Amino acid sequence: MNAQQKIKNKTKKNLHICVGLDTDINKIPGFLLSMENPVLEFNKIIIENTKDIAAAYKINFAFYEKDGAEGFRNIEKTMELIPQDVLTIADAKRGDIGNTAKMYAESVFNYFNFDAVTVNPYMGYDSVEPFLEFTGKITFVLGLTSNKSADNFEMKKLDSGKFLYQEVLGKISEWNSARNCGVVFGATKLEQLSEDLKMMENLYALLPGVGAQGGSLSEIVKLFNSRKYNKFLINISRSLIYAGNSENFGEVTRKRLSGYNDIVSNILS
Amino acid sequence: MNAQQKIKNKTKKNLHICVGLDTDINKIPGFLLSMENPVLEFNKIIIENTKDIAAAYKINFAFYEKDGAEGFRNIEKTMELIPQDVLTIADAKRGDIGNTAKMYAESVFNYFNFDAVTVNPYMGYDSVEPFLEFTGKITFVLGLTSNKSADNFEMKKLDSGKFLYQEVLGKISEWNSARNCGVVFGATKLEQLSEDLKMMENLYALLPGVGAQGGSLSEIVKLFNSRKYNKFLINISRSLIYAGNSENFGEVTRKRLSGYNDIVSNILS
Repeated sequence: MNAQQKIKNKTKKNLHICVGLDTDINKIPGFLLSMENPVLEFNKIIIENTKDIAAAYKINFAFYEKDGAEGFRNIEKTMELIPQDVLTIADAKRGDIGNTAKMYAESVFNYFNFDAVTVNPYMGYDSVEPFLEFTGKITFVLGLTSNKSADNFEMKKLDSGKFLYQEVLGKISEWNSARNCGVVFGATKLEQLSEDLKMMENLYALLPGVGAQGGSLSEIVKLFNSRKYNKFLINISRSLIYAGNSENFGEVTRKRLSGYNDIVSNILS
Repeated sequence: MNAQQKIKNKTKKNLHICVGLDTDINKIPGFLLSMENPVLEFNKIIIENTKDIAAAYKINFAFYEKDGAEGFRNIEKTMELIPQDVLTIADAKRGDIGNTAKMYAESVFNYFNFDAVTVNPYMGYDSVEPFLEFTGKITFVLGLTSNKSADNFEMKKLDSGKFLYQEVLGKISEWNSARNCGVVFGATKLEQLSEDLKMMENLYALLPGVGAQGGSLSEIVKLFNSRKYNKFLINISRSLIYAGNSENFGEVTRKRLSGYNDIVSNILS
């Protein structure tokens, strides 16, 4: 099943929440620390408790890379735990010149076998193109991000009158002939999202920033629903995976995710 | 010895060439392929033959990540082969929101123990700041890159009249209070470099694009020399490490590097 089909199957069941596996050994329940591989054990319990109600899983590479090769091994092992019908996103934000970007694409799509990836647009088309060659995968390009310093460059006004991130949105649509492009848009930027959603008509949307960063789940869903646009995934990491802190943390996360799903479903139906 | 001192020690000997370890198993001499770890064996021979005349080594993460955990292990093992007095650059082009960027910084600076890193500015200051906290390391921020599609966004004109990459150059200088900032500037963009060098006065410069990509070594060095500016490193990857293709490839690379060093030295002295 390709990435596009996986998203379609979940969103038609009103499942839009992506579980962000930003697994930090300093934040996981203490009882796991005596185990051989606490990070993997944590991911396993989160996945077991959410795999039938999660729309996707997003693995934030940084949290694994800080442990070097062992961290990369944990990404591999985590991937084995995720059911084949659930979309997996490599949140790696890669970007480099063509021959190098090709290697990054091979890493996330061939080696790790992710369904989707996040990439950085700064260097332009030839840094994104090697990812787009994988037409059954989805490449989410950074548009407007959820962080404060998005003002520094993303929100700079060009001489055309557009903001830089709007120029990026336009280009992503041009690159989307195989219908495998997406955009990362911060859920904290509701006003801009409302304004720009029309530019994202044929793009998948990945929205981080709900929860710890302050974005509102229901406002985002209401906006997408009002435009009859359903190719969106809302990523929630910290406030979902760290919802509980004792032996039953998996069930607490499941309950929290289920609650989020209800909010989404109530708006969409 | 911190990164700043390492660069100073090399550049005062007129050593400015950074050896780019873009090691691709499909391009290394065939006789290595029967060995247990051909990539590491290749790096070992290149490093042994260049370590006293290289200004720095740059490890292009993509070429290792395509082999997953084993690739990361090869980065670790390669790092062990590089003498302590030679600068090491993690060419990873990372960039993410603050708490994630912190993990990337821990990965390259603490886990792998690199002296320097390349990062992507798109998301702004809070994606770069966690790297800058390491004041004895150098963070090279992408400015104007060597690839064709740099036109897409980096060369977009802002309403201020500046190009986006010039806005980035200005910001990097603002972030440079600990004198640990650098900029990546494509050696293929000589005209812009000439125009913008004054904005890079207190920044380290990392210049890729000489060789396979078409940048001219001597033109670049003449330009820096004419401005009496010596904090620059010129990266050469493919046309240096793949100079030879038989059992003596290490010596061929050494001879090639030595020739490049002579070109540099003749201009500077």
